[in-house]
Amino acid sequence: MNSTDSIRVEMQDGLAILSLAQPARGNPFDGQFARDFKQVAAGLLDSDKLRAVLLRADGANFSFGGDLKVFYPARDQLPPLVREWTSDLHMGLQRFWRLPVPVVTAVQGFAMGGGVALLAGCDVVMAGASTRIGSAFAQLGFSCDSGSSVTLTSRMGMARARRFVLLAEMLDSEEAMRAGLVDKVVADAQLQDEALALARKLAAGPTVAYGETKRLFMQAGAAQLEAQLEDEALTLARVSATADAQEGIAAQVEKRKPAFQGR
Amino acid sequence: MNSTDSIRVEMQDGLAILSLAQPARGNPFDGQFARDFKQVAAGLLDSDKLRAVLLRADGANFSFGGDLKVFYPARDQLPPLVREWTSDLHMGLQRFWRLPVPVVTAVQGFAMGGGVALLAGCDVVMAGASTRIGSAFAQLGFSCDSGSSVTLTSRMGMARARRFVLLAEMLDSEEAMRAGLVDKVVADAQLQDEALALARKLAAGPTVAYGETKRLFMQAGAAQLEAQLEDEALTLARVSATADAQEGIAAQVEKRKPAFQGR
Amino acid sequence: MNSTDSIRVEMQDGLAILSLAQPARGNPFDGQFARDFKQVAAGLLDSDKLRAVLLRADGANFSFGGDLKVFYPARDQLPPLVREWTSDLHMGLQRFWRLPVPVVTAVQGFAMGGGVALLAGCDVVMAGASTRIGSAFAQLGFSCDSGSSVTLTSRMGMARARRFVLLAEMLDSEEAMRAGLVDKVVADAQLQDEALALARKLAAGPTVAYGETKRLFMQAGAAQLEAQLEDEALTLARVSATADAQEGIAAQVEKRKPAFQGR
Repeated sequence: MNSTDSIRVEMQDGLAILSLAQPARGNPFDGQFARDFKQVAAGLLDSDKLRAVLLRADGANFSFGGDLKVFYPARDQLPPLVREWTSDLHMGLQRFWRLPVPVVTAVQGFAMGGGVALLAGCDVVMAGASTRIGSAFAQLGFSCDSGSSVTLTSRMGMARARRFVLLAEMLDSEEAMRAGLVDKVVADAQLQDEALALARKLAAGPTVAYGETKRLFMQAGAAQLEAQLEDEALTLARVSATADAQEGIAAQVEKRKPAFQGR
Repeated sequence: MNSTDSIRVEMQDGLAILSLAQPARGNPFDGQFARDFKQVAAGLLDSDKLRAVLLRADGANFSFGGDLKVFYPARDQLPPLVREWTSDLHMGLQRFWRLPVPVVTAVQGFAMGGGVALLAGCDVVMAGASTRIGSAFAQLGFSCDSGSSVTLTSRMGMARARRFVLLAEMLDSEEAMRAGLVDKVVADAQLQDEALALARKLAAGPTVAYGETKRLFMQAGAAQLEAQLEDEALTLARVSATADAQEGIAAQVEKRKPAFQGR
Repeated sequence: MNSTDSIRVEMQDGLAILSLAQPARGNPFDGQFARDFKQVAAGLLDSDKLRAVLLRADGANFSFGGDLKVFYPARDQLPPLVREWTSDLHMGLQRFWRLPVPVVTAVQGFAMGGGVALLAGCDVVMAGASTRIGSAFAQLGFSCDSGSSVTLTSRMGMARARRFVLLAEMLDSEEAMRAGLVDKVVADAQLQDEALALARKLAAGPTVAYGETKRLFMQAGAAQLEAQLEDEALTLARVSATADAQEGIAAQVEKRKPAFQGR
């Protein structure tokens, strides 16, 4: 899988490390980033060796979201620009969030706008103690995009998420954790190491089970109980035939550590 | 827009202030209130100058909910009465909650039964420190109405909301905030001023963006990810053409305060 | 209603007390338990005297979930076994969770895997202070079943529930309460008495109202606001004609304790 101008991709034993790579510009969401993100997400889906993803950012800040310096000169003709950017970005996001492997993200400094939507869709969000997470949409006169109505709701509940966006709230790391937006707050200096360690651990886990679990939860909220129970049952029947499930049971009974292979 | 017997309506520069106006009776939910609320909600929807709503109550208490003094003498023939009241009240509630402007509510004293359902559907719920919020339905042998199964779930999550109603819990203001039912607790003496200040601030905000954001979140929980992403994209394309979005971007880049016009 | 090998059933004045009755084996989920649970759930649905359920467990632990000692020797031919067990267990669970009466559960010691899914679907979860609740699925290389994608989501929200399963987290009682998985933590020595007292109180409550309230909340998350409002209205019209609703109103106005009959 290739790096792009705005996203550096490194593969380490089944773990894909994606780094937002434009720190001098604040890792902005713009047309180039949208195209790059769509390409990278497609590449991850096509990679049959993939077992986990770590999403991180170079520099002092995770992302300031949409790039106002691009919007400003074009501000009287934004609709075509918005439709073009989102046609790439949203396609990338839906494929990224539906990746059948665990996704960990490390968030430092400021995370704003589309950056918040992106991190909120990850499976485990780790933030440095000094991280600040803000919904910038309303202060620009914008409605929310980048899937934030879905990913914020999945983390904070509907009413809390709606308030976060309507009031353009800015949360510190502890507030974000209490609201459900962040899973774990660590010392700033430990953030990259701890996120990498967790991502590596998940990359050595039972990949098929992780992927099916993600899929089941993503559809659970809107599903009928009976349909969801049956999906769980037939899914577990498939998963129970994997080498990893057999190893998991054997290791537990034999009181040893399982060696999962991701299949 | 006209006041009614049970609801006083005042317009202040795009802000509609609704006051439950029967404090001596505890601002009850009855047939008259249901008719009045339906009429007021319809009037708000028809008002093209509307930019925000503040819902408040005269007197010591927000509302005791359904008026038992009316139910009591009619208690062996309630079904037609319930169907009549809800035909007005529920029509009013669905139009009120779908208003395309931010709605702030100030809650003092007791809020019970239908009163809880009503406040829970507002975008920002501010409560005085001594406020107590209770679900009275079960202790009357009633199932829940007034949309409480939807609005309580959107704030507390399904299991917590169901418990609140089944156990007819009474929460103090801090418990209600921890449960998600209240957004902010303020000193009793500051409640009306702080709620009015927030409502005025929102009435001076980017109204179209607020309205579309509310709509997106109201449908997010039950929506498919891909459909929701596309709705967000096409919505933002429309919103980005508003005067407020152009002003928002310009103000941010020019490092000045935006002057939104609500269009 | 009859007891089975793995579940003891006692009826006390409309309260069904179900006890997981294989403490020496850790109250496992296996083929026999699945058949027993399906039979017991069907019996509860058919019982017209039922007014509440208490689900508890004999011994030091609530349940260790799936029985690895059965899986281990059969581990290279699990899919048919999983399909058979879930065909009984999931049918039992969907009928159990849709029982039209309140269900209280008392959880002590360890609750793992399917045991967590089961308790999470109950209306009120009481846990002893030393209780530990863990999602064991991922460490076995299993995807989640027993309805856990639905019941955990209804209690913790989607993202928190997904993390609980992906990371195979083990929560102590306070962590579980903060996450929404447990409703109340009590001293270990008080657990059985307090859960029984609450279940008895609910068994003396307005059963029809409780049942309809449960039904409304179970469908609320995925429902359209307008459809849900109308269901609430027509439901309350029916419920308001019950003897318990008339008694509830009368008792409130006459300032006495209501005597509900469950009809």
